[in-house]
Amino acid sequence: MPELRKDYVTDTWVVFSTVRGKRPMEAPASDKKTPTEKCPFCYGHEHMTPPEVLAYRKDGKPNGPGWWIRCVPNKYPALEVEGEVHRRVTQLFHSVNGVGAHEVIVETPEHEANLSRLSDFQVQEVITAYKHRYLDLIRDKRFKYILIFKNYGEKAGASISHPHSQLIATPIVPRRIMEEVAAVQRFHEATGGSCLYCEIIATEAEEEKRLVSENEKFVAISPYAARFPFETWILPKAHEMAFEDLADEERTPLAKMIKDVLGRLYQVLNDPPFNYYIHTAPCDRKEARYHWHLEITPRLTETAGFERGTGFYINPVMPEDAAQILREGEKTEKPH
Amino acid sequence: MPELRKDYVTDTWVVFSTVRGKRPMEAPASDKKTPTEKCPFCYGHEHMTPPEVLAYRKDGKPNGPGWWIRCVPNKYPALEVEGEVHRRVTQLFHSVNGVGAHEVIVETPEHEANLSRLSDFQVQEVITAYKHRYLDLIRDKRFKYILIFKNYGEKAGASISHPHSQLIATPIVPRRIMEEVAAVQRFHEATGGSCLYCEIIATEAEEEKRLVSENEKFVAISPYAARFPFETWILPKAHEMAFEDLADEERTPLAKMIKDVLGRLYQVLNDPPFNYYIHTAPCDRKEARYHWHLEITPRLTETAGFERGTGFYINPVMPEDAAQILREGEKTEKPH
Repeated sequence: MPELRKDYVTDTWVVFSTVRGKRPMEAPASDKKTPTEKCPFCYGHEHMTPPEVLAYRKDGKPNGPGWWIRCVPNKYPALEVEGEVHRRVTQLFHSVNGVGAHEVIVETPEHEANLSRLSDFQVQEVITAYKHRYLDLIRDKRFKYILIFKNYGEKAGASISHPHSQLIATPIVPRRIMEEVAAVQRFHEATGGSCLYCEIIATEAEEEKRLVSENEKFVAISPYAARFPFETWILPKAHEMAFEDLADEERTPLAKMIKDVLGRLYQVLNDPPFNYYIHTAPCDRKEARYHWHLEITPRLTETAGFERGTGFYINPVMPEDAAQILREGEKTEKPH
Repeated sequence: MPELRKDYVTDTWVVFSTVRGKRPMEAPASDKKTPTEKCPFCYGHEHMTPPEVLAYRKDGKPNGPGWWIRCVPNKYPALEVEGEVHRRVTQLFHSVNGVGAHEVIVETPEHEANLSRLSDFQVQEVITAYKHRYLDLIRDKRFKYILIFKNYGEKAGASISHPHSQLIATPIVPRRIMEEVAAVQRFHEATGGSCLYCEIIATEAEEEKRLVSENEKFVAISPYAARFPFETWILPKAHEMAFEDLADEERTPLAKMIKDVLGRLYQVLNDPPFNYYIHTAPCDRKEARYHWHLEITPRLTETAGFERGTGFYINPVMPEDAAQILREGEKTEKPH
């Protein structure tokens, strides 16, 4: 069973999962693509993954071909789904056993596809699967937070090149979410009821210089203090606390906006590795105030000793410049 | 002038330094070594750096050969040394102009050397230079924190392979330091005067299983919640708040301990890329309680969407296992 441990000193948590060290190494080829014959996410290879927890298919049987979206437990899970949550606290040592869920959402049966170039329908189905799995897992009261995320490219931590996203449910609320929820709450109190993210959207829409793209339901911005070059956030214009409240009529605009931003990054930065993740309210949202959004962070620079030592970031690209380049869709040299 | 910006929502700060994007790209050779003839840190190339701020030499002139340690301003500084600190705060936007210092400490004239294999004397001189530069810069009241750090290997963010460390002085105290100082203060109050780091040292010395190495003045441990595989901390056994208080008789034991731990990592992990940094009290230490130490973090795994989204880390190696392997000095397979 994996184990979560808190640092002696700060609120930094670490998931210890020795099974993650057993993942097969990629062949050190230059293009770093998983060969189709070894790909567990291709048609006919359904037996290479644990049994599916969800699939969208018209014909065919469970765990066989014919699907267009397929969700399976991660074969090398960071957290495991069986068991109760136990917490152990002494003066210096604080641990929680590694109960949680770790799933993979296969975004398409096409091995060589790219999320930014899939049809609107297919990306909408990916979003539907995200919501579907989210709503299933949130019923489990052991889980305090559910993170949906995507690693694209080997430098971004993807060990398989076939298009896929992941979901991890954790038995404690992560610190970044706690910090954001606390800030939103403080802002609400200080302003007599305003939402901090709504204020960000309104201000950035007015200032325009950090605006990347916009449609009827969503806006994409280069955030004022982007940690990484070309970091881009997608936010719903309507004040919505949680991703799982996504309305049916928002799915197509969200699919279009994700495709739009990823397409611009692909074009401008020549298919960069990236991570994205959805920030939503904690599972137990009785008291929480929040405004869900999606953060996309390309992997163009390495963090180093300064970042590790301080928690600060160094970014060589001003967000205003990144936004302009992304708006215009022009090619640029990768920063380093 | 670079600019520091705080995130709209959390206390995350970002240094925007567009000059950093202008650093020369390494040739994409497989061994990633800077060729000697292009190396600004070799004898006879002193004109390739800004004028030195400190050098240890017997003969020869400033900015010529003959030195065994040389400190120069970074040619592509994250922060700039001229000017006053200005802070601008509105409801959403909080910035500080990028006043600070960014220096390079060249650890040896030998291009092909490795810190873990230098003589005790030479490593001791590196430490002396750290302290020397620290004591000079701390007199500047614009600087609130001084981080001394080292990036080793291209994957760890080093753009030049010639052995060197760096120093960055910042106009605000970094969040990681603030968190640690606050935790030490809380522990002090809760225990009626004990030091949290002294307690860590005592407990880990007693439990032994996370102990890596020890000499008369220093101890090295695999921390209980190591964020990274084979992360190792070196702590002074005596309760010392700040690195700049390092006593003369501690310099050789510290040099030996740094060489010892880096040598074990070199041996066990086959010369891994790594970062290290010194955590010390903020410059203005009137009220601060702290216990300085040095953190070494090898770069063996990639952080990905989960880490970026949550602030949690995933570590596939238990610290107890890492400590045992490092104690025994046996070769191991790199985790991934």
